[in-house]
Amino acid sequence: MDLNLIQQLVQPAETKIVLLVMDGLGGLPQEPGGFTELEAANTPNLDALASQGICGLQMPVGPGITPGSGPGHLALFGYDPLKYQVGRGVLSALGIDFDLTRQDIAARGNFCTVDENGVITDRRAGRISTEANIQLCQELSQIDLPHVELFVLPVKEHRFLFVLRGEGLSPEITDTDPLDVGKKPLPPRPLSPQATQTAELVEQFVAEAHNILQDHHPANMVLLRGLAQLPDWPNMRTAYGLNAAAIAAYPMYRGVARLLGMHILGTADDMGSELDVLASHWGEFDFFFVHAKHSDSAGEDGDFDRKVQAIEEVDRQVPRMMDLKPDVVVITGDHSTPARLKYHSWHPVPVILWSEYCRPDQVTVFGERACMAGGLGPRLAAVDLMPLALANARRLGKFGA
Amino acid sequence: MDLNLIQQLVQPAETKIVLLVMDGLGGLPQEPGGFTELEAANTPNLDALASQGICGLQMPVGPGITPGSGPGHLALFGYDPLKYQVGRGVLSALGIDFDLTRQDIAARGNFCTVDENGVITDRRAGRISTEANIQLCQELSQIDLPHVELFVLPVKEHRFLFVLRGEGLSPEITDTDPLDVGKKPLPPRPLSPQATQTAELVEQFVAEAHNILQDHHPANMVLLRGLAQLPDWPNMRTAYGLNAAAIAAYPMYRGVARLLGMHILGTADDMGSELDVLASHWGEFDFFFVHAKHSDSAGEDGDFDRKVQAIEEVDRQVPRMMDLKPDVVVITGDHSTPARLKYHSWHPVPVILWSEYCRPDQVTVFGERACMAGGLGPRLAAVDLMPLALANARRLGKFGA
Repeated sequence: MDLNLIQQLVQPAETKIVLLVMDGLGGLPQEPGGFTELEAANTPNLDALASQGICGLQMPVGPGITPGSGPGHLALFGYDPLKYQVGRGVLSALGIDFDLTRQDIAARGNFCTVDENGVITDRRAGRISTEANIQLCQELSQIDLPHVELFVLPVKEHRFLFVLRGEGLSPEITDTDPLDVGKKPLPPRPLSPQATQTAELVEQFVAEAHNILQDHHPANMVLLRGLAQLPDWPNMRTAYGLNAAAIAAYPMYRGVARLLGMHILGTADDMGSELDVLASHWGEFDFFFVHAKHSDSAGEDGDFDRKVQAIEEVDRQVPRMMDLKPDVVVITGDHSTPARLKYHSWHPVPVILWSEYCRPDQVTVFGERACMAGGLGPRLAAVDLMPLALANARRLGKFGA
Repeated sequence: MDLNLIQQLVQPAETKIVLLVMDGLGGLPQEPGGFTELEAANTPNLDALASQGICGLQMPVGPGITPGSGPGHLALFGYDPLKYQVGRGVLSALGIDFDLTRQDIAARGNFCTVDENGVITDRRAGRISTEANIQLCQELSQIDLPHVELFVLPVKEHRFLFVLRGEGLSPEITDTDPLDVGKKPLPPRPLSPQATQTAELVEQFVAEAHNILQDHHPANMVLLRGLAQLPDWPNMRTAYGLNAAAIAAYPMYRGVARLLGMHILGTADDMGSELDVLASHWGEFDFFFVHAKHSDSAGEDGDFDRKVQAIEEVDRQVPRMMDLKPDVVVITGDHSTPARLKYHSWHPVPVILWSEYCRPDQVTVFGERACMAGGLGPRLAAVDLMPLALANARRLGKFGA
């Protein structure tokens, strides 16, 4: 449903919603006739919720489309990812708690390695340590650019955040990252006349950075991509009337959450710690986004068994979540990451919607094949989950007389 | 999904897709409790693919909408038939290998029979022989129209192609075919001011044709409909990066295929010959559209048993197709043609999507009722099949970071 319509129907309620995102949840059988990761996992608690709730498979973006994590999450939050598109630079900034202003343009930066001819030999500079990264960012921060303020901030390993702050800056500039080794970094090109000055500033930064870094092999050059500006979107309070909070270990997910006005509750990494955070802030918010990352990392590593374990780790914490007496629980993923593909995939993602008021279906286990027969259907649009959660939380009024 | 989005995500791959269209595949039970044609057919090979793949029912245009063959096929090729509309005139031209230019307007022509008052008594002139048609078209080609070139070309039986070529022609003219007997042919009316001159030319052609044909009973008049111009659409290469080929016996289907830039591989009629063509060109293309016509003709004739046989004829060739080692196979129809209705119908069409990477469902036979429980759901939009096929062929990249 359209966000504007939902916004018009929102009504206050004293109810609490938990959205538990198991990153990369959906999977594939390793061999014909086999189980998927979720089907193979021993998940008595998730199965109980599936029995009581309504299940299905959801598509974050659309049929055949493999979602990035940003679009995958925006869809779960009810923001159409085809309409609400955000550059990587903004996500990087939000993910390290950098307070972006409307005067800023931000890019995702990589330290990389170039050879004596300037050709990229490693786009990630051998994944240098975060400590080395911090050091280099301090040096690059000294670069002096005319009329603008410069921020170069470490993210993790080889990744940093690049921000220019000033009047009249434009993000309409091409990436310097060619996304491939064996090529030279690309010059930043303005995509509109207003971006000419900004492109010159970026070019000057890259040149001076190259100078400063030349003796810092393997991190002897920088790559910039996803230059972007803070978007002007409705947040979760204006869209849904929700006081929302996020519990997520990885910067990227906190970034998306902050973009929608969620409060960030720390950086707990494992499910147990995340549940501690959830319990200790339970009284303060009415929407909680809880992000479990390990299912995705295991899938990306092609480690079927570790993905199974990551799912089981979440399952063990489900009773603690239910003990908090949430009114509505949605459990799903932001996309599939089958261990067999070692990558995000286009396959729809299993979902449970649990509440006192949902209409149960006949699904009794949480798994891909079981969910195909669920009441939410095998191809639910992910953006439809938030309206359903709000309705089940009695937070949406009637449409029309 | 929007074609533009797909176009942005397309990435190269060394994979092959086969789209096997069994025309008019979907059916109905002849009597309550009975089987449909597909359910009645003995299809061990299709059933095996259904077991390994993911199944469902697809809607070519939308709920309740009975598709023509053009829209039905465009949807299967991923082109929204509500957005990509093409006149019958253009399809007729493409179907007889007529090389339409952007200067042309084309109409589908029928020879018909009129009585002494000019009232139509047979819209198809008793389905005159193609030989008689060829003769008459030669005579009509002699008509001299000011400032334009005229083409009158035989198609089959009573059908011909009418083309005007010249500067400033417009297809915005009403049909002369009233689509009913007991009425007179209609005068061509311009639907916009730019079409006035063209309408006059068409009127002059019809008058002179009537003159020439008056002694050629039953083919003593002409009817024109579907006046249209070549549309400017992305082809399969620009949209999907596919080098595509079509194997189809009937002009209409080759016409649609040519419109999307597919290479036309001959005019083999039965499934066995079509598979010969497929095998002999296997190395040259990465997308093959294979059209099986007989299921539809049998359905249109109301011949349940012959439709069953047509389906079984296709089933017998499936192993030969699979021996070629395609990466992705889609098997479906362009619409339903239940023998019981003797006509195209609005019922969703069974579909199998088979690939190494599809997520199997619990469907083990290929039939309407079985497919309702499939992972593609009972109401998949047909236009979503191409993105799914491309994704399974690893030809679509990730959306967003």
